[in-house]
Amino acid sequence: MRAAIIGAAGYVGGELLRLLAQHPNIKSWRATSRSQAGQLISAVHPAMRFTDARFSDATAGQAAKDADVVILALEHGEAAKVMAEVLAAQPTLVVDLSADFRVNDLALHETYYGPHPAAALVPQFRYGLADVDSSALKAAKAVAAPGCFATAAQLALFPLATVKVSQPALFAVTGSSGSGALPKATTHHPARAHNFFAYSTGGHRHDAEVLQSWRKWTKNSEAQATLLSHSGPFVRGIHLTLHTRCENPTDVARIPELFAKAYAGRPFVHVLENPVELTHVIGTNEAHLHVVTRPTGEVTVYCVIDNLLKGAAGQAVQAMNLALGWPETTGLLHGGIFPC
Amino acid sequence: MRAAIIGAAGYVGGELLRLLAQHPNIKSWRATSRSQAGQLISAVHPAMRFTDARFSDATAGQAAKDADVVILALEHGEAAKVMAEVLAAQPTLVVDLSADFRVNDLALHETYYGPHPAAALVPQFRYGLADVDSSALKAAKAVAAPGCFATAAQLALFPLATVKVSQPALFAVTGSSGSGALPKATTHHPARAHNFFAYSTGGHRHDAEVLQSWRKWTKNSEAQATLLSHSGPFVRGIHLTLHTRCENPTDVARIPELFAKAYAGRPFVHVLENPVELTHVIGTNEAHLHVVTRPTGEVTVYCVIDNLLKGAAGQAVQAMNLALGWPETTGLLHGGIFPC
Amino acid sequence: MRAAIIGAAGYVGGELLRLLAQHPNIKSWRATSRSQAGQLISAVHPAMRFTDARFSDATAGQAAKDADVVILALEHGEAAKVMAEVLAAQPTLVVDLSADFRVNDLALHETYYGPHPAAALVPQFRYGLADVDSSALKAAKAVAAPGCFATAAQLALFPLATVKVSQPALFAVTGSSGSGALPKATTHHPARAHNFFAYSTGGHRHDAEVLQSWRKWTKNSEAQATLLSHSGPFVRGIHLTLHTRCENPTDVARIPELFAKAYAGRPFVHVLENPVELTHVIGTNEAHLHVVTRPTGEVTVYCVIDNLLKGAAGQAVQAMNLALGWPETTGLLHGGIFPC
Amino acid sequence: MRAAIIGAAGYVGGELLRLLAQHPNIKSWRATSRSQAGQLISAVHPAMRFTDARFSDATAGQAAKDADVVILALEHGEAAKVMAEVLAAQPTLVVDLSADFRVNDLALHETYYGPHPAAALVPQFRYGLADVDSSALKAAKAVAAPGCFATAAQLALFPLATVKVSQPALFAVTGSSGSGALPKATTHHPARAHNFFAYSTGGHRHDAEVLQSWRKWTKNSEAQATLLSHSGPFVRGIHLTLHTRCENPTDVARIPELFAKAYAGRPFVHVLENPVELTHVIGTNEAHLHVVTRPTGEVTVYCVIDNLLKGAAGQAVQAMNLALGWPETTGLLHGGIFPC
Repeated sequence: MRAAIIGAAGYVGGELLRLLAQHPNIKSWRATSRSQAGQLISAVHPAMRFTDARFSDATAGQAAKDADVVILALEHGEAAKVMAEVLAAQPTLVVDLSADFRVNDLALHETYYGPHPAAALVPQFRYGLADVDSSALKAAKAVAAPGCFATAAQLALFPLATVKVSQPALFAVTGSSGSGALPKATTHHPARAHNFFAYSTGGHRHDAEVLQSWRKWTKNSEAQATLLSHSGPFVRGIHLTLHTRCENPTDVARIPELFAKAYAGRPFVHVLENPVELTHVIGTNEAHLHVVTRPTGEVTVYCVIDNLLKGAAGQAVQAMNLALGWPETTGLLHGGIFPC
Repeated sequence: MRAAIIGAAGYVGGELLRLLAQHPNIKSWRATSRSQAGQLISAVHPAMRFTDARFSDATAGQAAKDADVVILALEHGEAAKVMAEVLAAQPTLVVDLSADFRVNDLALHETYYGPHPAAALVPQFRYGLADVDSSALKAAKAVAAPGCFATAAQLALFPLATVKVSQPALFAVTGSSGSGALPKATTHHPARAHNFFAYSTGGHRHDAEVLQSWRKWTKNSEAQATLLSHSGPFVRGIHLTLHTRCENPTDVARIPELFAKAYAGRPFVHVLENPVELTHVIGTNEAHLHVVTRPTGEVTVYCVIDNLLKGAAGQAVQAMNLALGWPETTGLLHGGIFPC
Repeated sequence: MRAAIIGAAGYVGGELLRLLAQHPNIKSWRATSRSQAGQLISAVHPAMRFTDARFSDATAGQAAKDADVVILALEHGEAAKVMAEVLAAQPTLVVDLSADFRVNDLALHETYYGPHPAAALVPQFRYGLADVDSSALKAAKAVAAPGCFATAAQLALFPLATVKVSQPALFAVTGSSGSGALPKATTHHPARAHNFFAYSTGGHRHDAEVLQSWRKWTKNSEAQATLLSHSGPFVRGIHLTLHTRCENPTDVARIPELFAKAYAGRPFVHVLENPVELTHVIGTNEAHLHVVTRPTGEVTVYCVIDNLLKGAAGQAVQAMNLALGWPETTGLLHGGIFPC
Repeated sequence: MRAAIIGAAGYVGGELLRLLAQHPNIKSWRATSRSQAGQLISAVHPAMRFTDARFSDATAGQAAKDADVVILALEHGEAAKVMAEVLAAQPTLVVDLSADFRVNDLALHETYYGPHPAAALVPQFRYGLADVDSSALKAAKAVAAPGCFATAAQLALFPLATVKVSQPALFAVTGSSGSGALPKATTHHPARAHNFFAYSTGGHRHDAEVLQSWRKWTKNSEAQATLLSHSGPFVRGIHLTLHTRCENPTDVARIPELFAKAYAGRPFVHVLENPVELTHVIGTNEAHLHVVTRPTGEVTVYCVIDNLLKGAAGQAVQAMNLALGWPETTGLLHGGIFPC
C-alpha cells in the first residue's frame, strides 16, 4: 500500500512518518507540507535520518490520487478545506487527525468550533476510538481520529457509562509538544520549564467529542463532563485524573470489574494495580489506567498516554490497521523509551 | 530576639535560616541538626554562604533554653517527641512545622497519623493559617504551621464555606522538593524529570487538617473534601485545582465577591483575573488564586504557592510576626525569582 | 537617589527593577519600555507584584533628565542610538548593559559587531568588571557592564594572566533565559527541554571583550582565548570550564595561590575546594570558582554564575554602588534560592 | 539464537532487553538479576510490558550454558568475577558492557581501576568500537563494549589521529541515566533538575580506554587526551566537545575530509554540516558529529550519542551483529523519538 501524509511537517506528522516508514504493509509513502515543501524530511524530523526524501508540494488532492491511504495532519479547519478533493480522489482509506470531522452533531461542533465549513462531508466519517470499539472501524473508508485529551478522557469515562455517577471532573495535564512545533509564549523555555498552569479555563474544544461519546454511552443527551486542562513542564504525554461519585455508593464494588471487562483483550489498554506513570507510556501506543474507589462512593480514574502516539499518530495507524483488515497492532509494538 | 531552628538541615530548615538571617527583628539564630551537627551550614544550604556558622548538636530542649523563638522543622512524629522539653524551656514563641500539633480532634489525627504520642500538649497549639485569620495568632505562644498541600487547599476552600456546594475535589500537584532532601526512588532524576504520577491515592495525610478547617468553616461536622495528590516534574511549588458545584447554580454569581472579600487587604493572597502560574510565586510567600464559574453552577478555583515558603518556612515566619506583634510582612517581601 | 531603567521589559530589566526596588539608597525608580509602555510592570515581571507602577513611554533622554542613575538594558546596537541624549542629560551615573561600549579598541569591536554607531562616546565608558578591579569604578560617570559569558570567562582567566599558559579553551554553557524574553526556535520548550547543543560555533561576540581584557592582563596584544558556547536545558545560569596548560609544568603549584590572592576579600567571588554547582549561585550576585591542576601542567578552572544577576543586573548594581561610593554589597546580599 | 542478559535490571539491561526482544535473529532471551530475581521484568522496565517473563536467579554460568549469545550488563568489577564461568560454558559469543575487559594494557587498567581480578582472560576480548573498525569484530568470540563517554570521545578523536595536534581537551556532558537506576545524592531531582556540575575532576575512568585507542591510532605511546566530565540536567545522552590545535595551521584544511573519509559508509555515524543536537540521537544507535576549524589551526569536534544505546546497549547489539555475521544494522534501525 502507498500512503500520503498531508501536512507532515508538524510533530504529529513526524511521528506518522516514523510509524509508516517502519510499517510492514506500507510499501511507499509521500509527505506533503506547504511550509517545508522541497526541504529534506530529515532536516525537520530528526528520527527520519534514514531517508533522503523531501517534503512534496503536492496539493492534498494530488497526493490523494497517488495513494491508497491518506492521512491528514493539518490544523483544525484546514482539513475541512481540502477534504472534498481528497475524498474525490477515492483512496482506499482517509484518516483525518484534525477536529473537523469528529463531531456528527453539527450544533455541538459549532458551539466549540464555529460553523462547519464542510458539513456535508461529516456523515462519511467514523470516529476512530479503536480501543473502545474496534469493530466500528472495520472496512471504514474515512476515519476521524480523536483528539489527544479526548482520547484519555474517553478511555477513563467509557467503563463508567453504565453506572449512575455524578458529573465527572477531568483534570488533565499535557506536555508542551501538544502545542505544536511553532514557538509560542506558553512554550518559551524560560517560562515553561518549571511552570504549571491551567488554560482554556472556560472550556476546552475537546469537550465536544468527549460529550458526544459520553452522551451516547450513557444514553443521556444531557450528560455533562468537565475537562479541566493544564500545561505541565514536560514535553510528551498526557496525565488525566477523572473524579466522580456513584449515586449509589455500593456501586463502587462493580467499578474494577467494569474496567477489566471494558478493556479485556484490548492490546493497547492496560488497567494496572498501581498508580500509572507518564514516562511508562512515552514512545508507545499504550494507555495505562488505574482505578481507585472509596467507601463514600467516590471513583478516581487515572490515565496516561503519549499525546503524539496514542493521542494522534499511533491512534491513526491503529485505525488504519483495523479499517484495512490488518492485525490491529501491526507496526505499533515498538517498546517505549525508558528512562527518557 | 534570638531564634533557634530545630532540625535545620532539610529544605524547609534551609529556607527558614535564609528568612531569619535577613529578618530585621531577629538578632541571632542557632541551627540544630542531628545528622549534620558540626558541619558548616553553608555546606548544606548554599544560600547561607555568608555565614561561617555550623549546625549545633544541642538537644531541642537545650536550644530552646537559649532562644526567644523556637521553630521546629522536624519530621512528623519527631516534633512530638521533643515538644515537652521545648515548651518546658518557656520560650516566648514556639512554631512547629510538623503535622503533630495541627489537628485538635485527636480521633481525626489518629485516623491519618496513628495514636498521638503527646496528646496532652495539643491544646496549647493554635493552627497558623494566617492568611485566613491573622487575629487568631495574636500573642500566640505555640503555633502549628499548616502543611503545604493543606495551605493551598484551605486558601481555595475558605471563601466557599458559606455556599452550599458539592464535595470539593482538590487536584494538587507538588514539586520534588516536597519529598525532602534525601534521595528516594520517586525523586531519582531519570525517573522523575519528565514524569507525572499520582501518589497517596487512598488519601493524603494533609486531609486531616483540611477536613478540620472545612468542617469548622462550614459548621458541618460531616463535610468532606477529596485531596488528589500528584507529583510533577518541577522542583518547587504546588498547583491546586479545586472543582465543585453550587447546589443552587445561581449562587455562582456570588463566588467572585466571596473570594475578593475573604482576602481583601491580606498582603500575601492575590486573587487574579487570569489563570495563575506556578513560576510567579516561586521565591515568595504569596498565594495566587483564580476563580472560574460556569452557568451550570460549577466552580473551579486555581491556587499556586511556593511549597517551601508559603507552604512552610514563609508561613512560619508570618505566624511568628503576628504572634510577636510585628508587622505581618516583616522579612517576607523579597521579590520572587523569575524566570527560574 | 532616583533611578531610571531604560528598556526594562526584558528579563534583565526585571531583575534590575527587583534589585533597585529593594535597594536602600534608591528612593524612586522609573522603568521605560517601548513594547510595554502603559502596561503594568507586574504583568510583565511577576516578582514586581508589590507595585502598581506602569512602564513609561518616556524616551531615554527624557527619562535620563529626571534621574540620578540611568541603567540601560537595551539590545546591542540600541543603546548606542540613544546614548548621546542620555549623556547630554548629565545624570550622576550611567550604566549600560549592552555590548556597545564595552570594547575600547574600535577595530576589535568592529570585527564582532560591525562599525560602531557612536564611536565618539566609547572613551567615556569604563569597563565594569568590579570583581577584578573595584577601584577602577570609583567615581565613574559611565560604566559598560560586561556580558554574561564574558564575566564568567574573565573571572576564570584573570588569575592566570601572570603565568605562561597555552591558549585557553573556554567551554561555556548557558541557560535559556540568556536568549531573552521573546520565543525563538532554540527556546521552544519541546526542542530545548532535554537538549544540549553548541551555537555561534564560528566565534561568540563576547570574545571581543574577553580578548580585550586577556590581552591587557597578559600584556600580549596577540593573546588568544577560545570561547566555545553551548545551550543547556536549564533556565538560569552559566557554567564555564576553562582548560589550558602551563608552558612550565611546575608552574601549576602556583595556580591555587594566584586564585586565592586575586579574589581575597572580594565579597562576591568564592574560590571553593569542591566542584562548583550551578544551582548554588542562582538568585545571587556570586561567582563560584574551582581550580584543578595536574602534574602534566594542565589547569582546569570551573566557574558558575547567575547570568541575569552576576552576569547582568547584579553586576550593574555592584558597579553603581562602587561608582557612587556606597558599600559594594549594598542591596546585593539576598541569599539565593535553593533548591530551585 | 538464544540470548542471555546477565544483570538485566539496570537501565542498560532494560535497553538490551528491548532491542533483543525486537531483534529478528534472536528467537528467545532470558534475563538474570540478583536484585530482582523472580520479579516481573515489566515491573522494572516499563518498555517490556508486552512480556510476562520474570527475572531469573540463574548464575551467570548457568545462564551462559543455555545461551548462544551472552551479554553482561554488570557493574565494573562484577563481570570479572563471573567471566571464567561464562567463558567455560562456551557460548557462541560473549559481549561484556563493563569496563573489566576493555583495556589490554594491564598497567593502564590498574591505574584507573586497581589490580585486575581476572587478568588472564583479558586477551580473549576484542574492543568493540564497531563504528571505527567493524572488521575487527568479525567472528569475534568475546567483545568488550566501550564505555559511553569513551565512545563519544573516540569517535571525535579517531579521524584526527593522522594529524599532528596538541593534546585534545574533551568537554563531555552526560545525562542522569548514566548514573544508573539507584537513587544517589547527585541524581536527587531537586538537586539535579536545573543543575550543571563537573565530576571526577581528577580524571575519569574512561580515560583508560580512550588513551589506549588514541595511543594506538597515533602510534605514540605517550599521547594524552584530557576528558573533562560534567553532569547536565537531562536524562539521556552525551554531548562532547573536543578542542585541539593543529601544530601546522594549514592542516585544518584536511580535517573535514578526514572525518568524511573515516565514517564514509558507516551506517550509524553522521558527520553533519550544522551543530549537532542531543535530542536528535535519543532513542537511536547513531552518533552525530560536527567539525569546526579556524585559521588559527584550532579544531573543534562536536559529538552527540544516546548514552544507553550507542554508548551501551545499541553498541553491544551492533557488535553482536558483526561478530555473528549478520547485517550490522539488524534490529537497530528504529527511528528515534523526537521531540522527547
